[in-house]
Amino acid sequence: MNSIKNASSKHFIQQITNGNISFLSKAITLVESNSQKHYQKASEILEGCLPHANGCIRIGITGVPGVGKSTFIEAFGKYLTRLNKKVAVLAIDPTSSLNKGSILGDKTRMESLVNDKNAFIRPSPSGDSLGGVTRKTRESITLCEAAGFDYIIVETVGVGQSEVAVHGMVDFFLLLKLANAGDELQGIKRGIIEMADLIVINKADGKFEKQANLAKTEFKRALHLFPAKESEWIPEVTTSSALNNTGIENIYQILNTYLKLTKKNGYFYQQRKLQNKQWFYEAINNELKNQFYKDEKVIESISEYLNKIEKDEINPFKAAQNLLKRTTI
Amino acid sequence: MNSIKNASSKHFIQQITNGNISFLSKAITLVESNSQKHYQKASEILEGCLPHANGCIRIGITGVPGVGKSTFIEAFGKYLTRLNKKVAVLAIDPTSSLNKGSILGDKTRMESLVNDKNAFIRPSPSGDSLGGVTRKTRESITLCEAAGFDYIIVETVGVGQSEVAVHGMVDFFLLLKLANAGDELQGIKRGIIEMADLIVINKADGKFEKQANLAKTEFKRALHLFPAKESEWIPEVTTSSALNNTGIENIYQILNTYLKLTKKNGYFYQQRKLQNKQWFYEAINNELKNQFYKDEKVIESISEYLNKIEKDEINPFKAAQNLLKRTTI
Repeated sequence: MNSIKNASSKHFIQQITNGNISFLSKAITLVESNSQKHYQKASEILEGCLPHANGCIRIGITGVPGVGKSTFIEAFGKYLTRLNKKVAVLAIDPTSSLNKGSILGDKTRMESLVNDKNAFIRPSPSGDSLGGVTRKTRESITLCEAAGFDYIIVETVGVGQSEVAVHGMVDFFLLLKLANAGDELQGIKRGIIEMADLIVINKADGKFEKQANLAKTEFKRALHLFPAKESEWIPEVTTSSALNNTGIENIYQILNTYLKLTKKNGYFYQQRKLQNKQWFYEAINNELKNQFYKDEKVIESISEYLNKIEKDEINPFKAAQNLLKRTTI
Repeated sequence: MNSIKNASSKHFIQQITNGNISFLSKAITLVESNSQKHYQKASEILEGCLPHANGCIRIGITGVPGVGKSTFIEAFGKYLTRLNKKVAVLAIDPTSSLNKGSILGDKTRMESLVNDKNAFIRPSPSGDSLGGVTRKTRESITLCEAAGFDYIIVETVGVGQSEVAVHGMVDFFLLLKLANAGDELQGIKRGIIEMADLIVINKADGKFEKQANLAKTEFKRALHLFPAKESEWIPEVTTSSALNNTGIENIYQILNTYLKLTKKNGYFYQQRKLQNKQWFYEAINNELKNQFYKDEKVIESISEYLNKIEKDEINPFKAAQNLLKRTTI
């Protein structure tokens, strides 16, 4: 590990584009790091990797906790690796942080996919208050693409704003749901349903099979009430069961039909360009904050300002203005 | 209006703290403006007003379109003005923008409140891509407080992320719902329900009265399942009808009970301090972006970068880095 740590950016780029997972993993860590000393190297690696990042399909998968995301992604991932495709899974977990050992926690999930040489699973810690949940996900996607992955799955937990962000960086958005209703109350909101290109009613087995098929019919009907999508794609609804090992191949076919349509009508490329522009703005805005909060004078005085705000000795607006001018208290 | 435009910051502050609505209104426009030439003046006015901003109660009111927000706020506002209180309503409307005439549109709403000399209604346009929906709401609240308003109602449409932002700047959060169910599908998500200090089942009249009372019982039960609030307040559920003119006084009593509890246990003050710290960070982050995107060199080259991204001639990450270094293409 030490040899990786000291490797040059050039060596990193070479190893990543050769598909070396250890280097890919370390590069993602560098990219996710907020430390100024990692920033330069991360930028160099990212820049060197960008020309190699292409031709990959990016899939967003979301669903509330308990819907069976891990099992589903494992089944779908294994299906793809059996087709000799390379699959990377980036899991955005707002409840975890690197320090709290989310990587370790994740190793117990998707066990057979973890041990698949054609698969790479990477949990991303939640962002801190200065960043955002999906702060560096676009960059991680790029690194995985440069490492030769054919499919990149970005997994979110379906309860917050991160779905909107992830939708803004993938080609295809899949929503997992349970048949036994009530998951509106679990937090799936209309906005997330509207973003979905495919809704999969999961755990469609045993006593839930009938319910799942009913839910499928209902959802198909409901989706017709939504406005037509710019992609001209009519969102699909299907069922899946990891237990019975059903539905996965059908989902792969639906994905392909979607890709065929959107590549033909140009939406696929147009969407990626739009996403690139969003990335441009995000990269700027993140770096503006990064640079500011890493400034020595800012670090020196920010806690003092917070103290004074706590004691009502300065108003927040004035405090912000002073800090922006880098004046001490 | 021209005389207002050319008035000095000192004159602005004097007029606002005297309760002059025209100056208050113009000051909010200055504060909301992204233009650099307004920024200096807006900052001066805001700073001068801050010592006068205090003692006001801030209430967030949210609910999906159709729930009867305008009618409810009008009834509640009129109740307060009859008690000789001054009421300001800041409406955050993500679908409107100043150019599209949201102010005009709003004049047709809350007609009797608009004509009440103790009331002030101000729609805020949605933010642009560089800002955010509630970009300057904290600042507008401050200006209204300096102008002597006793209650400030911040209204949102209950479908997105703006509720979280508004919850972070008010003392009391009220959610309006309809009895005839299904509004989970209208987009009210669990997170918003959890934030509520009071849920009001609106339009509890005619054939919906019985339903409303049923919904009230159900919600009370459901709220018990949520974790206890840090405020030690147990969220209330009640009904209201603008048609029958019922429920408003009760809501006012509930608000007072809440304020009594949270002022006694200190949560009220602690919460405001926390909100002030959030304001501090927001003010910094907004201004970092403002300063950057107003930079002449940035303005000069940003559209060229976007063009190159559109044509795939540069990758977004490199483009962002170049622009941050203010290098031309």
